[in-house]
Amino acid sequence: MNNRRDFIKKIAAAGALASAGSLALPASLNAAEKKGKVSLNISLQDGLTPGKSLNEKFDYMEKLGVTGVELGGGKLASRVKEISDALKNRNIKVSAICAGFNGWLLADDPAEKQKCIDSSKEILAAAGELGAIGMVLVPAFNSQKSYPHTMETRTRLVADLKELGEYAVRHKTAIILEPLNRGEAFYLRQVADAASICRDVNSPGITCMGDFWHMTHEETSDRGAFISAGKYLSHVHIASRKRRLMPGEDGDADNYIDGFKGLKELGYKGYVSFECGTQGDREKTVSAAVALLREQWKKA
Amino acid sequence: MNNRRDFIKKIAAAGALASAGSLALPASLNAAEKKGKVSLNISLQDGLTPGKSLNEKFDYMEKLGVTGVELGGGKLASRVKEISDALKNRNIKVSAICAGFNGWLLADDPAEKQKCIDSSKEILAAAGELGAIGMVLVPAFNSQKSYPHTMETRTRLVADLKELGEYAVRHKTAIILEPLNRGEAFYLRQVADAASICRDVNSPGITCMGDFWHMTHEETSDRGAFISAGKYLSHVHIASRKRRLMPGEDGDADNYIDGFKGLKELGYKGYVSFECGTQGDREKTVSAAVALLREQWKKA
Repeated sequence: MNNRRDFIKKIAAAGALASAGSLALPASLNAAEKKGKVSLNISLQDGLTPGKSLNEKFDYMEKLGVTGVELGGGKLASRVKEISDALKNRNIKVSAICAGFNGWLLADDPAEKQKCIDSSKEILAAAGELGAIGMVLVPAFNSQKSYPHTMETRTRLVADLKELGEYAVRHKTAIILEPLNRGEAFYLRQVADAASICRDVNSPGITCMGDFWHMTHEETSDRGAFISAGKYLSHVHIASRKRRLMPGEDGDADNYIDGFKGLKELGYKGYVSFECGTQGDREKTVSAAVALLREQWKKA
Repeated sequence: MNNRRDFIKKIAAAGALASAGSLALPASLNAAEKKGKVSLNISLQDGLTPGKSLNEKFDYMEKLGVTGVELGGGKLASRVKEISDALKNRNIKVSAICAGFNGWLLADDPAEKQKCIDSSKEILAAAGELGAIGMVLVPAFNSQKSYPHTMETRTRLVADLKELGEYAVRHKTAIILEPLNRGEAFYLRQVADAASICRDVNSPGITCMGDFWHMTHEETSDRGAFISAGKYLSHVHIASRKRRLMPGEDGDADNYIDGFKGLKELGYKGYVSFECGTQGDREKTVSAAVALLREQWKKA
């Protein structure tokens, strides 16, 4: 299609975007070498982990060889000492901080946007103290009144993320953009789109993730999605693929091998973190799910 | 993120989308076997091919071993005999028909939408007679006043494509959705999104394509994009990556190897079709570009 003169002129004038595409990304060429060396790092959200206290939960994780814990962002700053103490002398790290901020970034009400920025910064600072990879952020849920889905809105989002990204970098952590399924957040549904936002922001403080649950509904290829995420991929969520329970609770539908192949090809060093419910005995379903993922990782 | 009860209920009730994702797609497992066997089928748009008549253009193509010609859709029905005659006893087929329809599918003016449907059907019928893979369609350019980018609009688009897809199937051809860069068409920018529309329509008459020119600006990974397109990928456009000239005219920027890897992994059987200008002697720049692509295909 050829209605493109103005765009070409803009691009040529800026000297920008030249040979963008994937040339700078990792993987592909030496994928085979990388593949064998990539280990599966499992993380559990604290809320879904059996145990009455953080210490009991961490004991359970250690028994399973789980090395990451994902925590909610609510009042995180006040919990830094408690969490750090409970993690002392353990082989468990904080993987990601799951949201917890107020307001939303795409809000057409400036007060709601500012709330999001301010509360995200507070969480990012605590996330940094805890050594977390980053804080998961959804730009807007469907129920949150936002600017329309236009190029102008995207440009505004990129600028706001630039600010948050720079703040995150100063605190040695990152924002993790999470695409959701259309039923929750039509604005950002696909991993490749999240990655392209990361590229446009161009800050190490802005990264993205894929959640197998949402990907089941929005992606045509788990592997393609992760390859597109490339160097911007910092986190992964997992759940069963029909009802968002523990992986395995939906039987044969819970096949993650294609996506795991993609992660291996990327040399992915982050966590695969559980975000899901269960309909069984939690002690058993979590450990069965961990075993299933390890088995599928080997096959990938 | 957890605001999802309603969505889960809807999904569970419909029994739909279960284990969607990429499980049904080809490639991945036996990619290595496929890779060696996939040949590069080059196509040229007639307008950019040297020669004063169709016959001269086809002679030129044959000298280069080019096996596909991409034609504009304007007045195609009246040209079927002329084109078929010129193709007789040649090793050249019509690859795709590039647009040529009136109106646009996302128009909020029903008359414009109907024009698009009616004129597309006319072109699809002729495309079928010519044995073309399909007709390239952009749902809306930025300059074309359309419904807002919401879930409702997408649902409407999917329904309209269903109608066009069924018509295309009856004529043994297809619609080929083309994502463009944001400067031309913000609505559909990424190959993975085009593929997800194809999945939602679920008609063999609705397929998608990737254009390396647009992908340079919108994709973080050419390979990831093609893998996401998977079985829905029916066509590919190519151009130089800085100025949309013949591949090679932008020097080292014109690297397509990563994307070609993806096409090989898919066992892609369609064409890689030139859509671009030139700033050199057309006779030479086209043939140099064809040679470059063959060289890069071997390396992929």
